[in-house]
Amino acid sequence: MNKINIAQKFSLFQEQWQPKIVGELNDSYVKLARLKGEFIWHKHDKEDEMFLVIKGMLTIKLRDGDLTLNEGEFVIIPRGVEHCPFAADEVQVMLLEQKSTVNTGDIQSERTVDNQWI
Amino acid sequence: MNKINIAQKFSLFQEQWQPKIVGELNDSYVKLARLKGEFIWHKHDKEDEMFLVIKGMLTIKLRDGDLTLNEGEFVIIPRGVEHCPFAADEVQVMLLEQKSTVNTGDIQSERTVDNQWI
Repeated sequence: MNKINIAQKFSLFQEQWQPKIVGELNDSYVKLARLKGEFIWHKHDKEDEMFLVIKGMLTIKLRDGDLTLNEGEFVIIPRGVEHCPFAADEVQVMLLEQKSTVNTGDIQSERTVDNQWI
Repeated sequence: MNKINIAQKFSLFQEQWQPKIVGELNDSYVKLARLKGEFIWHKHDKEDEMFLVIKGMLTIKLRDGDLTLNEGEFVIIPRGVEHCPFAADEVQVMLLEQKSTVNTGDIQSERTVDNQWI
């Protein structure tokens, strides 16, 4: 059982759109990700997903409008809700997801990545 | 679906050792708590628990030594592991817990509190 320093973990990778696992509890993973630009529209049919902004600004596009998160703000996207993350400048986020969650949800694409610990 | 601003939520309460629910996803609650002083030794037999320090410094006493967390650091206490949170000065923490988790774990005490949304 070790403590995790979020900033130190971010210093270990520069890749964008490739969430890294930094912890697991119960049936969930805690992940860190760098995001920049626009992702793809997708949803998770059976999993809610939490986005917490650590540094920068994140927009979550939703079918009925955009949601903009600044540092220290989070949102929980309920299962079944289509969303598309977007960041004009790079943003650092913490994700909380069920272990079964795939980053692109119901869409298989070249953006789909496997889980990776860091 | 609303975004949650952590600092704004903390401004809504001053009570210590009374975690407030600020979000739910899957089978878990996201909670915020102000802690100061020493809690009680306890464990959660079936639930892992995450402590993320938002502001201040938190010590988690463990039977084999202490763990000290600063802002931007977290630890996941695995199920079954006895722990006792301690903070010399008030610390603001985010907790991630299964919905079934009781703050005092296997100990029923005057420190036991019910879940409360804020």
